Amino acid sequence: MKLLYEGKAKRVFQHAENADWVVLEFKNSLTAFNALKTGEFDGKGALNRNMASLIFNVLDRQGIKTHWVKDVDEASMIVRSLKMIPLEVVVRNYWAGFLAKRFGKPEGDKLPEPLVEFYFKDDALADPFLSEEQIRVLDLAPGIDITALKKIARDLNRSLSTLFEKANLILADFKVEFGKDPSGQIFLADEISPDSCRLWDVLTKEKMDKDRFRRDLGNVSTAYQEVYNRLKGVKV
Amino acid sequence: MKLLYEGKAKRVFQHAENADWVVLEFKNSLTAFNALKTGEFDGKGALNRNMASLIFNVLDRQGIKTHWVKDVDEASMIVRSLKMIPLEVVVRNYWAGFLAKRFGKPEGDKLPEPLVEFYFKDDALADPFLSEEQIRVLDLAPGIDITALKKIARDLNRSLSTLFEKANLILADFKVEFGKDPSGQIFLADEISPDSCRLWDVLTKEKMDKDRFRRDLGNVSTAYQEVYNRLKGVKV
Repeated sequence: MKLLYEGKAKRVFQHAENADWVVLEFKNSLTAFNALKTGEFDGKGALNRNMASLIFNVLDRQGIKTHWVKDVDEASMIVRSLKMIPLEVVVRNYWAGFLAKRFGKPEGDKLPEPLVEFYFKDDALADPFLSEEQIRVLDLAPGIDITALKKIARDLNRSLSTLFEKANLILADFKVEFGKDPSGQIFLADEISPDSCRLWDVLTKEKMDKDRFRRDLGNVSTAYQEVYNRLKGVKV
Repeated sequence: MKLLYEGKAKRVFQHAENADWVVLEFKNSLTAFNALKTGEFDGKGALNRNMASLIFNVLDRQGIKTHWVKDVDEASMIVRSLKMIPLEVVVRNYWAGFLAKRFGKPEGDKLPEPLVEFYFKDDALADPFLSEEQIRVLDLAPGIDITALKKIARDLNRSLSTLFEKANLILADFKVEFGKDPSGQIFLADEISPDSCRLWDVLTKEKMDKDRFRRDLGNVSTAYQEVYNRLKGVKV
């Protein structure tokens, strides 16, 4: 298969037969701080692929459009080939991470309501935080209705929060990307996994996500595996 | 007079007779980079006071509400005592400063349309850039209609751009703060001067503002004096 693009956590290959599809291979690598910190663990690609597929299935049944088509091999899936929107969309339910740091708040308290944020996807600029007015005036997401995108992000947040709640996990925040098909329809085009979600055990508040790697808390692979085990046990 | 507050460029005193007023004294100091860099020049306070008063007079005649009441002494003015809105409002007409740096663009090109930005006024947090959704969800400007505030900022930008254009100066961007009176009416409550505006000579594009100090370009006081001289010559 022809490699189209290699990112920090995935490789994208051309699909041999269908030009509307691409093959995503999930790598074992872990990166943080715009790839200044790197690591990996065996089986991570397969684990993240499995979590993403399980979650895409749930979202699909709830009417949220995702790029997922079907799984192949143990760490790959076929997804729709989409024109990516160059925005990282972050939805926050709790004070954590960059938001907490930026406002000098401790992590852990719930926000009055979910907060949707946009970041411009550009590694060289270190993905700057954007206002909606910047997106509009500087034309950073040509042809995209930001109000519609925010509604999709909020709907996604409701579905994911409910799913993780059933797995005894708090979804503190998450980052996703979207793409559009030739008709302009917007699809979720990003994995949902402990790489991109902050997940806290509902009782102990223990971190079960990439913050274990970012902050050298240890037991990274154990936490990822535990998240998958819990998700598999959820009756949806 | 009782000192109520001392900021980086001004002192605020209680007014002896009128509780609805305060006295603003313009200092000779110059600061940049959240006061990491400091300087001063003789007569700066009086010069900035004179420019602010001249501009407040122009704005007043154009129906833009400002806190200015009347001048006193050579470097002071009486202004309304207002409840300050804890936002720095930035209006940008050209690629310059923080915006240019953030998006890796050279300074100097005009934006497709004016861009209004908000920053949370908090020295300890280094005045973080905000989205309107953060202002709303985190309740950072209680009781303030952000849409109305943006309209005031855009009207102000039109008036100021026209005024400076008549002085052969391009208003590349500026930062202002607003306050509200007990009835909730919003007033411009900040000086307009080369401290808070980027002003470029319309022909030579020479910087005529605090960037001369920030970037060690020399002739700071000469540039401030030239801006005032040109403004005085404008027929409004």
